[in-house]
Parts: sequence; C-alpha cells; structure tokens
Amino acid sequence: MRWTEIDGLECSVARTLAVIGDRWTLLILRELLLGSRRFDRFQTYLRVSPPTLADRLAKLEAAGIVDRHRYLERPARFEYRLTEKGASLNTVMTALADWGDRWRLPPGGEAPVVRHHLGCGGRVEARLVCAACAREIEPARIERSMSHALVAERAGLELARAAR
Amino acid sequence: MRWTEIDGLECSVARTLAVIGDRWTLLILRELLLGSRRFDRFQTYLRVSPPTLADRLAKLEAAGIVDRHRYLERPARFEYRLTEKGASLNTVMTALADWGDRWRLPPGGEAPVVRHHLGCGGRVEARLVCAACAREIEPARIERSMSHALVAERAGLELARAAR
Repeated sequence: MRWTEIDGLECSVARTLAVIGDRWTLLILRELLLGSRRFDRFQTYLRVSPPTLADRLAKLEAAGIVDRHRYLERPARFEYRLTEKGASLNTVMTALADWGDRWRLPPGGEAPVVRHHLGCGGRVEARLVCAACAREIEPARIERSMSHALVAERAGLELARAAR
Repeated sequence: MRWTEIDGLECSVARTLAVIGDRWTLLILRELLLGSRRFDRFQTYLRVSPPTLADRLAKLEAAGIVDRHRYLERPARFEYRLTEKGASLNTVMTALADWGDRWRLPPGGEAPVVRHHLGCGGRVEARLVCAACAREIEPARIERSMSHALVAERAGLELARAAR
C-alpha cells in the first residue's frame, strides 16, 4: 500500500500522517516550534539539502500548515509561520517529545526541550483528558467505538482476504 | 541526513520517530489499539505484505513496544500485545487522530474512531496540560527552554554552516 492509498483509509491517524508523516516535515515542524522562521535557519539546524527543504516547505504551505511572508524585497526572502492549523499540531509534537523524554533519553541525559506554562512556570505535557469530566484518563480506561464507514471498510477487507 | 543520524540529534521528537516513524509501524500501532493481536489480522486490515509486517513486528518487539505470546504450539502462532512502553504511545496516537478528525475529515464524514472514557462515557482527547496547575494550556502560552546539550549542538551547527 502506498501513501496515497493509506490516505484513503478510514483512519484519522493515516490522514494526519499523509500530511506530516515525512521525517523532514516533522523536523521542520519542530524547528518552527523552536522559533525558526527562515530558510537558512532550517538548513543550518537540520542539515537538509535546499531542494528537499524547499519541497517540504511548499507542501506545508499547500496543506495550510504554514504561511509565507516576504521580509525582503530584493532578493526575495520569506519567513514561514505556523497557521492555526499548524499550531494545532503542538499537541502531536509535544506527545512525541514526551514519549522520547520518557523512554529514549541517553543515560544521564536531560530533556532537550522543556515546555513551560507562561506565567505559572509549570511543565506542559500532552495528556489524555476526558472532555466531559475533565479528568486525566489512563489508557486502560479508554473504550473505542468505530464509525459505520470504518466497520464497513473492515468488513470489506475481511471479505477480500477470505476470497484470496 | 539519515534516520541513524537523526536519532543522534538532541531531539526527543527525532528519538521517538526513529522507533515509530515508519508509516507501517504507526498503522500497526493503530491496529493494536483497535484490539488486533494476530499476524493475519494486521495483514487483513492493513494489506501489508507478510515480510514487511514480520520485519516491523520484530522491530517493535526489539524496541520493547510489543510482547509476543505463543497461543498455538503447532504450528507456532503468536499474539502481539502492547507493553507499558507501547501503551504509553496512546497519547501520541490520540493526538494524531484528533488532528486528523479536526482538519482532514472528508465533507460530511464522521470521526472513524471515537475514544470514550469508560464509565463516564465522555470523549477522550489529547490535550496540553500544565503539570503544576493542571490547567489546559493554549499553544501561545507555552515557553520553551533548551538543555545545555541542545544549545551546544545548535552552536556547533551554526559554526559548521558559517565555515562552509
């Protein structure tokens, strides 16, 4: 199965990854969250080739995740900033970083980036929260329900498999 | 830069992606969270080739994200279950799905999977929460601080770039 097919799955994880699942794209998002806005900054901190960087930035702009602002007329130079859609990836990026901080720090290493709550100073973390009772939820206390479309998709995949 | 180099960055996002950043791996994690445990279930629902699936499951086991349990002696058959380390990817997966639900549903489409809080029934979402004051935090209210190691890495990258 290819990316384009994965994007066609009844799966919101796949739909998100179809847009941001490329490793360079995710690292560009990290840089944007760390405050980088200019092409040469991304290039410096990620050691990414200019054609690859230009391609990924163009895709992020086409997906509505970054906006491009000209900051110099001649030569034309642009800054990239997260849109509202892009900024809402903050939870994804924080969840990825939290997991790396918890499970993949080298011995004696400290978290490379700590997110603080402006004002209170507390550490900001991605957590599973119930929208109704506002409590933090353990994975074991989560029950999943599937949409009709997803149930139908899975029934079709089972039939296709049985017919082989 | 390759995966192995990315893994060497002072970056917990990169360290997480070095383990789970492959698209098949992320979809296998989705299946595990939906309750699939057996090889043929993953194969059916993901239409992944057996060698690719076997490779990704072996890597997940080596990374301590899944455990393998034999459920049949002859022929030898195994079930895969998330370990504690694997189950703690729940926040990452929910954040990815939430973003897809919010920004990438087709017109008129409904969320393919809804996570409910067992007991209360409320919808479970990944959110940014302050560990000190327990409030939900807007992205604009987050301030980032970098470790000494990360500051040093970035200074080195700036020097390398200036020397070119």
